[in-house]
Amino acid sequence: MSSYKVKFIPDGKEVEVAANTKLIEAAKKAGVYVNSLCGGQGACGKCKVQITRGKVESDTHAIGFFSKEEIKNGYALACQTEVIDDLEVFIPPESRIEEEQILIDESVVDYSKPEKLSVARVASDPLSFFEPLSQKIYLELPAPTSEDNISDIDRIIRGVRKKLRYQSFEISLHCLQGLSAKLRNNNWKITATIVKHGDIWRITQIEPGDTSDNNYGVAIDVGTTTIVAQLVHLKTGKVIGVEGSHNLQAHYGEDVISRIVFSCGRGKGLNALHESVVENINSLIKNLCETKGVDIEDITSIVAAGNTTMSHLFLGLVPCSIRLDPYVPTAHVFPQILAGEINININPDGVLETIADVASYVGGDIVAGVLATGIADKPETKILIDVGTNGEIAMGNNDWMVCCSASAGPAFEGGGISCGMRATLGAIERIEIINDKLKYKSIGRAKPRGICGSGMIDCVYEFVRNKIIDQQGHFNLSTKHERLIETDDEPGYIIAFSNETETGKDLTIKESDISNLIRSKGAVFAAIKSLVDYVGMGFDEVDTFFVAGGFGNYLNIPKAIAIGLLPDIDPEKIKFVGNSSLMGARMALLSSHAFDRTVEIAKMMTNIELSTYLPFMDEYVASLFLPHTEKRLFPSVDYWQE
Amino acid sequence: MSSYKVKFIPDGKEVEVAANTKLIEAAKKAGVYVNSLCGGQGACGKCKVQITRGKVESDTHAIGFFSKEEIKNGYALACQTEVIDDLEVFIPPESRIEEEQILIDESVVDYSKPEKLSVARVASDPLSFFEPLSQKIYLELPAPTSEDNISDIDRIIRGVRKKLRYQSFEISLHCLQGLSAKLRNNNWKITATIVKHGDIWRITQIEPGDTSDNNYGVAIDVGTTTIVAQLVHLKTGKVIGVEGSHNLQAHYGEDVISRIVFSCGRGKGLNALHESVVENINSLIKNLCETKGVDIEDITSIVAAGNTTMSHLFLGLVPCSIRLDPYVPTAHVFPQILAGEINININPDGVLETIADVASYVGGDIVAGVLATGIADKPETKILIDVGTNGEIAMGNNDWMVCCSASAGPAFEGGGISCGMRATLGAIERIEIINDKLKYKSIGRAKPRGICGSGMIDCVYEFVRNKIIDQQGHFNLSTKHERLIETDDEPGYIIAFSNETETGKDLTIKESDISNLIRSKGAVFAAIKSLVDYVGMGFDEVDTFFVAGGFGNYLNIPKAIAIGLLPDIDPEKIKFVGNSSLMGARMALLSSHAFDRTVEIAKMMTNIELSTYLPFMDEYVASLFLPHTEKRLFPSVDYWQE
Repeated sequence: MSSYKVKFIPDGKEVEVAANTKLIEAAKKAGVYVNSLCGGQGACGKCKVQITRGKVESDTHAIGFFSKEEIKNGYALACQTEVIDDLEVFIPPESRIEEEQILIDESVVDYSKPEKLSVARVASDPLSFFEPLSQKIYLELPAPTSEDNISDIDRIIRGVRKKLRYQSFEISLHCLQGLSAKLRNNNWKITATIVKHGDIWRITQIEPGDTSDNNYGVAIDVGTTTIVAQLVHLKTGKVIGVEGSHNLQAHYGEDVISRIVFSCGRGKGLNALHESVVENINSLIKNLCETKGVDIEDITSIVAAGNTTMSHLFLGLVPCSIRLDPYVPTAHVFPQILAGEINININPDGVLETIADVASYVGGDIVAGVLATGIADKPETKILIDVGTNGEIAMGNNDWMVCCSASAGPAFEGGGISCGMRATLGAIERIEIINDKLKYKSIGRAKPRGICGSGMIDCVYEFVRNKIIDQQGHFNLSTKHERLIETDDEPGYIIAFSNETETGKDLTIKESDISNLIRSKGAVFAAIKSLVDYVGMGFDEVDTFFVAGGFGNYLNIPKAIAIGLLPDIDPEKIKFVGNSSLMGARMALLSSHAFDRTVEIAKMMTNIELSTYLPFMDEYVASLFLPHTEKRLFPSVDYWQE
Repeated sequence: MSSYKVKFIPDGKEVEVAANTKLIEAAKKAGVYVNSLCGGQGACGKCKVQITRGKVESDTHAIGFFSKEEIKNGYALACQTEVIDDLEVFIPPESRIEEEQILIDESVVDYSKPEKLSVARVASDPLSFFEPLSQKIYLELPAPTSEDNISDIDRIIRGVRKKLRYQSFEISLHCLQGLSAKLRNNNWKITATIVKHGDIWRITQIEPGDTSDNNYGVAIDVGTTTIVAQLVHLKTGKVIGVEGSHNLQAHYGEDVISRIVFSCGRGKGLNALHESVVENINSLIKNLCETKGVDIEDITSIVAAGNTTMSHLFLGLVPCSIRLDPYVPTAHVFPQILAGEINININPDGVLETIADVASYVGGDIVAGVLATGIADKPETKILIDVGTNGEIAMGNNDWMVCCSASAGPAFEGGGISCGMRATLGAIERIEIINDKLKYKSIGRAKPRGICGSGMIDCVYEFVRNKIIDQQGHFNLSTKHERLIETDDEPGYIIAFSNETETGKDLTIKESDISNLIRSKGAVFAAIKSLVDYVGMGFDEVDTFFVAGGFGNYLNIPKAIAIGLLPDIDPEKIKFVGNSSLMGARMALLSSHAFDRTVEIAKMMTNIELSTYLPFMDEYVASLFLPHTEKRLFPSVDYWQE
């Protein structure tokens, strides 16, 4: 089979691929990230590229995504185009995935970071127990005598018991093999690695001498968009380093639904998605180890948290039934495995725990967030909101927990918005209209390439406050303005003129974009309202609203309230918690009690399936208004009173 | 490197080996079994072969083992001879290992073999619980609905819980992978394989449809000399078939001590021994499956019992410290492993349990024997005696258990006896002297090749009863007899004349042979006596003496008492229990309660280390007499009263 060279501009990366390889695959192979929302189905038009040299074979169905000029200039969809020649391919700015602002985590609860294993335990707060999932215990054992001739492994277990209070141990065979010489050649001074597995501790490794300082774990947030790994020193609890990267699965689809579709289609879809995330994590861990000077063999445990679909793909489990009524996943609670079982490279005996899910659309990331925010451990009622493509909401206290998820659509992540984009370089993230003058700020102060979620919220807020749109989101066409135009068949408003933008085209918000954002914010608010109503409470009875996730940190709270995304409560009660999923995973890594707690939390959370919960639809319809059809719910919002 | 052909006579098997290969290795490769007691050290002289064609290179140190005639006829020790030419090698009868009478097992306790899992459980007798280590449970699950949308694996666990009473389950990752489609493609009708692991049940396999009939286990007695495997249908408890073979490790040494020495010497001794027993077991299982028409993938569990050294070699554990004071093994309780971890070929998720040991010289075979005979479950005090190279004795009841082991030497297995041999074809196993006429019976009624343990006991008994020897075992040289001769420097007694034997030489018992047997029987009796004294009891207070092992079944009880091997009690109290190790292993395979019981039994047994127990030496010296120096201990023995 013949092969061709494909060079990607502006990166300059070149790759050789077989004839008829899809261009998007070639880009992946070259390490060039091309946008895709639909998973390569030719349905989203986000992977537009320009063929600047050479011939290609393109699916003509994709032609509807292009203007005449684009067709003339050799534009094509990377996912619908096959390589049949040596090529030079230009990735236009709007199709590129640039470095994103990846959220690490930020403490909201005081989680103890004791310097020693012998830290006092606070019985009233199980999360304060510092007992990592995997521990290295240094032992100086007495040599056997006729009076004390218990077996080698019993001697080790007795030694561990003297240092810790655990009772039940088991040992792997390969750890027993060679144990005899290891003990005798090292004068009975060895370090045992013990790993909690259910109710017992497994002895997984015996090292000569004292290696108890060389024990590390990794906490991982397996996000749909980004994957973040934190390297933690398990003897002290210290975070040694953190690395994040785009989820390589984005090549196969932007959101969980398109990835499920991809993995359940013909071919090895599941394998490709599974291997992508494994590749992601291996490279994060490798980088962390290299930059921090840590031996990868000294990593003995991993705790990962992700939504239900991500957890399934991560572990190689078939996710197909997650998106089909009645939304049944393969598992909610996942087995502890050897990291090597899914080819994650750490110590060969290193284990991997995946935080348990609640339901098909309320995953381990939310459970980890509930753990991290301590919601399930205090008597006050609190809410955790995590808004991405799905809005997930958990509510409760140490007595009860309910949760739900609503499909918010991709608007908050730049999807479904004609000039929408993720919060990466060149995305407009702030907009203000003062005295009829529009000002914006783009990420990295680069030439605007599009508008991201927080920019859209600002935009809608400024439009409605300035009466550019009405409370239903329709443009007020009676006011003439140089920015207000009618593009194609619907009106729009120019945010940045062609001479200001990187693409050289006007950056315009259309009426349908506003409509999409209103649907998204309506879905999230209706979900929160439904959950609060379901338990018979009012917003004022909620002690704290935690806002988690990448979206949270860049959100302007008053504006989010003013468009009706968040309830109209004291902004002081709203707290950004950053990457609470990662924080929860780290807590579970550092405290096996906290890990056990995640399973309890997952089991105590009652999921309200909104798609079959009748009041939700009414709430949703009532929320498709700025800020809401029921004025009394938003007393502080004043723009509509004029 | 050049290679040569070696043909073994009389088998006619031919093999090609590299130059300088040891002849004993060539024999092993050809599948020809040559005797060896010392592990190829050139120290026992048991591997004599005759080079009938071709040249060899022999170690001249071995020359002391040969008569002039043998040297002239090309005799050499197979372990001290290297192949440097194409050869024809004759294995003389006395050097051959022939098919032995391998003991299967024979019920002594009524162990329930219920036809169904739903059998009534008898709370008073934990051993009667029929709950195999691995079970296949057929499930017809309801398809999920909106009201019943638990995860796939929770649905399976709920289904299993409805059928059984177990609470805790875990599942392997690879069983979760693909589960989704397996359930949906088979209309929610599947069979789950569950395996007990400690306090939880592991779901290890999901098969489409009802496969609950296709579930087998293997019980294995890993003996020093022979290995026996029993194929058991786990749904009904029925024994489907049984196969035994010589332990291939015999190539490297006949007894446990020489195998420990071999495995702890230079080179890959441990590997070779470990792989030998694995090869043994794989071929037994393969034969059983082929002859019984069972799919090897349907074998889901194995329980093996062996002495401490054999268990270590079987699992690939370093046995060196077992023979060094203070006699500390790597482990007494062994982890459950996947059979595949040591390359045993059954179902890839099939597990292997090894019965726990008590001490370095009281192993899992004795624990299994105690389980099988029910000693530890009834109030009456009983004794189990297992005599091979070591004599192991366990004594007790449901309240306490003590045990010990004494090195009996190899006399009972034909070792240390000039014309001794194992109980194989041509071994004299019965001797009677009536009216001065000696009659013998050989195994298979073949021409005599040597004398085995039971023959030696008969021999000593007949000698002392007929005053051919005195009570110290010295020949009474004053009585002249055609059979009584003085060979070399010591007297002897011809059992079979040269014209009757296969070797064409006289088969003679020497005074030193008698002396060896007296030392062996003395050690065993002294051990029994020490144990009974240790707990402050008399022989008459013992309810039953179980005699186990290959030796047991061919033993003439009155004669064994008369020479002072067994205590002088009512012969009715002495019961042969056959291969109680295999029977115990099968019970543990069929009842996880019985398996748990073996761990409890091993822990409740107090080992009396005779080598440091002072009264034992006195008992031993007192026992070096026929039947014993203390007449009152053997009131029924009358030959010395004349």
